[in-house]
Amino acid sequence: MGGPPDGRYDALVIGGGIIGLVTAWRAALRGLRTALADPAPGGGAAWVAAGMLAAVTELHYGEQTLLGLNMASARRYPDFVAELEEASGQDVGHRACGTLAVAFDADDRAHLRELHTFQRGLGLESEWLTGRECRRLEPMLAPGVHGGLRVSGDNQVDPRRLTAALLTACERAGVAFHRARAERLLLDGDRATGIELAGGTRLTAERTVLAAGSLSGRLAGVPDDVLPPVRPVKGQVLRLSVPERYAPFLSRTVRAVVRGGPVYLVPRENGELVIGATSEELGWDTTVTAGGVYELLRDAHEVVPGITELPLVETCAGLRPGSPDNAPMLGPTALPGLLLATGHHRNGVLLTPITGDVMAEALTSGELPPEARPFTPRRFAAPAATPSPAQEQHP
Amino acid sequence: MGGPPDGRYDALVIGGGIIGLVTAWRAALRGLRTALADPAPGGGAAWVAAGMLAAVTELHYGEQTLLGLNMASARRYPDFVAELEEASGQDVGHRACGTLAVAFDADDRAHLRELHTFQRGLGLESEWLTGRECRRLEPMLAPGVHGGLRVSGDNQVDPRRLTAALLTACERAGVAFHRARAERLLLDGDRATGIELAGGTRLTAERTVLAAGSLSGRLAGVPDDVLPPVRPVKGQVLRLSVPERYAPFLSRTVRAVVRGGPVYLVPRENGELVIGATSEELGWDTTVTAGGVYELLRDAHEVVPGITELPLVETCAGLRPGSPDNAPMLGPTALPGLLLATGHHRNGVLLTPITGDVMAEALTSGELPPEARPFTPRRFAAPAATPSPAQEQHP
Repeated sequence: MGGPPDGRYDALVIGGGIIGLVTAWRAALRGLRTALADPAPGGGAAWVAAGMLAAVTELHYGEQTLLGLNMASARRYPDFVAELEEASGQDVGHRACGTLAVAFDADDRAHLRELHTFQRGLGLESEWLTGRECRRLEPMLAPGVHGGLRVSGDNQVDPRRLTAALLTACERAGVAFHRARAERLLLDGDRATGIELAGGTRLTAERTVLAAGSLSGRLAGVPDDVLPPVRPVKGQVLRLSVPERYAPFLSRTVRAVVRGGPVYLVPRENGELVIGATSEELGWDTTVTAGGVYELLRDAHEVVPGITELPLVETCAGLRPGSPDNAPMLGPTALPGLLLATGHHRNGVLLTPITGDVMAEALTSGELPPEARPFTPRRFAAPAATPSPAQEQHP
Repeated sequence: MGGPPDGRYDALVIGGGIIGLVTAWRAALRGLRTALADPAPGGGAAWVAAGMLAAVTELHYGEQTLLGLNMASARRYPDFVAELEEASGQDVGHRACGTLAVAFDADDRAHLRELHTFQRGLGLESEWLTGRECRRLEPMLAPGVHGGLRVSGDNQVDPRRLTAALLTACERAGVAFHRARAERLLLDGDRATGIELAGGTRLTAERTVLAAGSLSGRLAGVPDDVLPPVRPVKGQVLRLSVPERYAPFLSRTVRAVVRGGPVYLVPRENGELVIGATSEELGWDTTVTAGGVYELLRDAHEVVPGITELPLVETCAGLRPGSPDNAPMLGPTALPGLLLATGHHRNGVLLTPITGDVMAEALTSGELPPEARPFTPRRFAAPAATPSPAQEQHP
């Protein structure tokens, strides 16, 4: 381990989840001497996530600026995957399967119809289907399905494989891993100069990136006005498996709103079927609860009754890094030498490619590229100066 | 391992579940040179079971003969536990907490009222409570509870601890463990003389007890007319845990019939809350399914809504050894040298003490004690000669 010859890195990334890993990988590819600190790199929220790349189906009113970033990242996915698979020698389970969002009652249908109109108005690809057309695509759907939206561009990746491939790619690109917890940001006057690890080791760097997911708001030594306003948003997720005799059980991601909450079923090519996800604001708790599992099974059962026959293989829970406007914080902070890459909330997997590119650019040039400027962390530090992306209303 | 000095055991038990273990322990205590064959003793259906000792609340019409055996075993439980805990030096989690069976609607209530009358007619202790009285005993009960039966004598034991203690007691009593699968019963003329293990080792014994749970019908070499008619009845079970801040969540076993199926919640003193159980006839399948977990959570949630807050710690499935009349097969078969101790279906844990006593007597004297005679395996081999206990109707 230890640092580079002169004891100082160009870039030091705090956090070994997908966002920290992609930042470190992309920085190292630009020739920066890069280090990453995490007691167990490869963990984090992506270990739990389903891996939907749902820029279009997860569109929300008032989040058009975020949509732009999501779409830009979705467009980069095929090339990103090709490059990562080449660099790591590993398959990441990227599947261009599309997504089907279905409606059960008149309310649901009206809602989806509105979403469809909104999507079309923004020039997004999205096709309205009748209930019968939905069931023709996915015969396991409940008979009560009365219509749906087919979004061919909303695909999926396997976040566990993605994480593993990023780890390997980082190692091959020469990223130095420090397997310890970052205890404290080091300052020299008004400049961040590195971190102190649990155990006392100090790492110094020209630029430090805080990419610790939902923990990013808890690093000691970060001045209050720079500390990112992230909070943990718990998600519980189930993993079922589809026995050979039922395959293909589903051919694409299926989602619906049941009792006001979203539920989705993501079928992998390897027979895994991921069902997610709860959204709970309970602090740092990552317990799998009877209630979480019950609601996921109940809602998924309403959409695809046949899931009852499938083995339940795994239950788990993770913490999304929620931000005040549901958009990430990317790039330089008001503290020279400290950058952020956190607050990705539900979109961490989707935003992985563009986050890597944007952060590598910011680490190299000191500036955010234009497409990322609305996501500067400074929008929260100085609310009067920069409007939040979520507050820019669609006409 | 190997056999005793002269190469021949007095008693050889096939199967290391609770029934096999208690048989071997009690036989060894009588001075019999005893061996037990099982690739992994201490497993079996008891590893999954909730451990209700529910002689009175699980009473069914037409099963009064079985009730007699169940009650006799329940009466022996306190002394049995004391002796086993002394012999093993281990606590088995026996808890004299009683059981509350609750009703939700008029139908349930009528059903429970009838059961109450039936119980009282048989001289069993059982008290009718109003909904309010039920909730005073168990404040976590759903508001919809309209009455219930309190059965103070239906207690619980922790089957995993019971199994572990029986294993230790067997070892201390000198039972020889052969950790291999029994492949075939050995015969000499019309007499069973022992078994051949996987790998080819042969064990010989004066008397061999087939106590392999739901697998008891599959041992090669057993003549067709002696092979026990057991079948696997799958049960899925959940284990939740009660955090300190919610304790005591429940103070006694709570059961109900929801949508026609029984559900029970068994609270342990160590904070475990066991929810069971499905009853599925699917052959040898022990998969935990999305549907099994869903139904248990749905039904338990209807009885005790607050379970949603509790961590879900474990899901598992086991196979009960079902018999044609739901009663066990105990004692000598028509084949000299071969005895059975199997077919305990839902009552294996409850019937453990009396099974040990009865089998030790049969192994020593060759005869079943009077209380066990209705459960001779011969009732199936010669249906005309001995009526099945389940067919003796209550007037």
